[in-house]
Amino acid sequence: MNSAGEPDRDRLARVFLARVIEPGDEVGGQWVRERGVLEVVRRLRGDGEMLPGVSARRWAGLRARAGRAEPERDLRVAREAGVRFVCPGDAEWPGPLDDLGDGRPLGLWIRGRPSLRMWALRSVAVVGARACTEYGAHMAVTLAAGLAERGWVVVSGGAYGVDGAAHRGALGAGGATVAVLACGVDRPYPPGHTELINRIAEQGLVVGELPPGDHPTQSRFVLRNRVIAALTRGTVVVEAAHRSGSLVTALSAQRLGRHTMGVPGPATSGLSAGVHELLRGEAVLVTDAAEVVELVGDMGELAPERRGPVLPRDLLEPGARRVLAALPSRRPAAADEIAREARTTPDDAIARLYELRALGYVERHGDGWKLTRQAVVSVGGGRRPC
Amino acid sequence: MNSAGEPDRDRLARVFLARVIEPGDEVGGQWVRERGVLEVVRRLRGDGEMLPGVSARRWAGLRARAGRAEPERDLRVAREAGVRFVCPGDAEWPGPLDDLGDGRPLGLWIRGRPSLRMWALRSVAVVGARACTEYGAHMAVTLAAGLAERGWVVVSGGAYGVDGAAHRGALGAGGATVAVLACGVDRPYPPGHTELINRIAEQGLVVGELPPGDHPTQSRFVLRNRVIAALTRGTVVVEAAHRSGSLVTALSAQRLGRHTMGVPGPATSGLSAGVHELLRGEAVLVTDAAEVVELVGDMGELAPERRGPVLPRDLLEPGARRVLAALPSRRPAAADEIAREARTTPDDAIARLYELRALGYVERHGDGWKLTRQAVVSVGGGRRPC
Repeated sequence: MNSAGEPDRDRLARVFLARVIEPGDEVGGQWVRERGVLEVVRRLRGDGEMLPGVSARRWAGLRARAGRAEPERDLRVAREAGVRFVCPGDAEWPGPLDDLGDGRPLGLWIRGRPSLRMWALRSVAVVGARACTEYGAHMAVTLAAGLAERGWVVVSGGAYGVDGAAHRGALGAGGATVAVLACGVDRPYPPGHTELINRIAEQGLVVGELPPGDHPTQSRFVLRNRVIAALTRGTVVVEAAHRSGSLVTALSAQRLGRHTMGVPGPATSGLSAGVHELLRGEAVLVTDAAEVVELVGDMGELAPERRGPVLPRDLLEPGARRVLAALPSRRPAAADEIAREARTTPDDAIARLYELRALGYVERHGDGWKLTRQAVVSVGGGRRPC
Repeated sequence: MNSAGEPDRDRLARVFLARVIEPGDEVGGQWVRERGVLEVVRRLRGDGEMLPGVSARRWAGLRARAGRAEPERDLRVAREAGVRFVCPGDAEWPGPLDDLGDGRPLGLWIRGRPSLRMWALRSVAVVGARACTEYGAHMAVTLAAGLAERGWVVVSGGAYGVDGAAHRGALGAGGATVAVLACGVDRPYPPGHTELINRIAEQGLVVGELPPGDHPTQSRFVLRNRVIAALTRGTVVVEAAHRSGSLVTALSAQRLGRHTMGVPGPATSGLSAGVHELLRGEAVLVTDAAEVVELVGDMGELAPERRGPVLPRDLLEPGARRVLAALPSRRPAAADEIAREARTTPDDAIARLYELRALGYVERHGDGWKLTRQAVVSVGGGRRPC
């Protein structure tokens, strides 16, 4: 936004392009990188002089889409649905997405309170088959709950099966979860998960590249997976058949230098065959959340006393500062109690607590939250850190 | 044997020591290496001057056992039970056992027709929990049958659970299997496997370090595992709890530079927990026999046309030569048909066929056996190779 509260020209151009260029289109990404968003918009919408790397037919298709784009309307509809648009350069933009190069999203549409950038810092993807077995659902719920209890954010795709189980496991443990959709974030897909996705937007984050109201397609599902892989420190595949979408996420993660993990299952199960294929390659076998955290956690995770100093408190947003101030200095407190003390809702308190966790201020112990030793020391002798 | 058909002094000394020194005792192994078997026997039985590396109490215990040893009787009892004693230097001694260094067996007692040396050349250990699940038993049977069908010898410990399933899988596929026991080979253990072990002695091999009539102990079970690991090209663990005996076999195999493999199972199963622990280390995940063979097979296994020339036929024993002569030159034949043609029993034919397989003369295709291209070429233009 500029000082008058209007979206600036670059932001509006990205909203425009998000309607015209498909997610992950690296030719479009290259145009943006080499010429800037304003020039690309001008070519698509104005005189129409063709940009390189596409056929005339394809260019005509893009021009037709450009003719229908209404970025101001998209932003208004989004705002009314409680959706914000975050793009590269914004404070909330997660840096790890830049690893996608020219396949980097033009921007992300986001529903939910927490800072995506903060949450992505300590996040793990838990993904897998839509038609999973009971075993797969059990493992997804258990892993996600265990990750949430260790202060990690669980990212998945909002689909039936393993994805849904992972989100539910995190939510059920009073934890943090992010659904990355292959459609407009105001248009939950699949329809049977409308309630779940709305709940995720309340307690966590629902994000996606597609503008409001846009629908998912097969290629959008596949390309959505690269965002899940890039956002997180690692991807755990719970169940996956040969050549399945979850394997695409895992292989994207591997290419991006993220940790790739797989949950073993019976050798007789076709829904574990894809995972076993991964595990015969570079992926690491994991059977519980502790093993996942051992891999994706930094040194501080395993040896908290070696963690560096926490970031300055004056960089925190007011909401996060209030929650930090509400933590008792010596004992753990439940999120509800902290919310009351900070005069906010439990969902908002959870959003802030996971942000503070990512910054090293707080730790989760089972159901309770407490200040880290560093947070206490940094304000001197156990007094309240605010 | 010497020229008069009597056991030579060295052989008799090893039979004697097998009664006195426990399997895998590296101090005893060092004595034998540094002083020779005759000198060690002289010390234990004769003047009794103590050898280094043991306490006086331990020495007295060894002397007492030496006083009770009757090697001529052991050999006679063995001979009557159809058991032979094979020791380092014998044509049938499997060279890979020498990798055990001072823990190398003093000798092996063997029941069964085939040459242990030949069979060990292309063998894989399939081991696991005694109290296995139905899934574990299913995987052991399937893997062993698949290995047998690919011409590999299945080695295991003759125990209940995975071991028994592995032996049965190989036998059921008309294949080759070796049981390595932690007791006298004339004294099948466990008792409930008497029939199975006798069947293995008919169609395959039953081997062990302990003299006739000797009983198993906990440490003998553990030390038996090093023989399984050393004999084979690799060890597959099917199911194993944390800190179980099968893991000992797998870790021995790893130390000896053999391939170590594990069959995944549900992360919720305690009987897969030990396997998963292995798979988080250096072991390779396998789900079927093809994956096992891919790992333990030499280049020739995957690309038969690159295999080198077969060994000269005049080095074969007469029994193996007869079976080789009985193979039709162009089409595969069943073991029964080959046995009839060679005027021998099906069990003997199987014993010889797996020896010939190890030497590159024959291949197994499903239920049939045929000459390899090299065997045919080596006798010229498809004529019978004898």
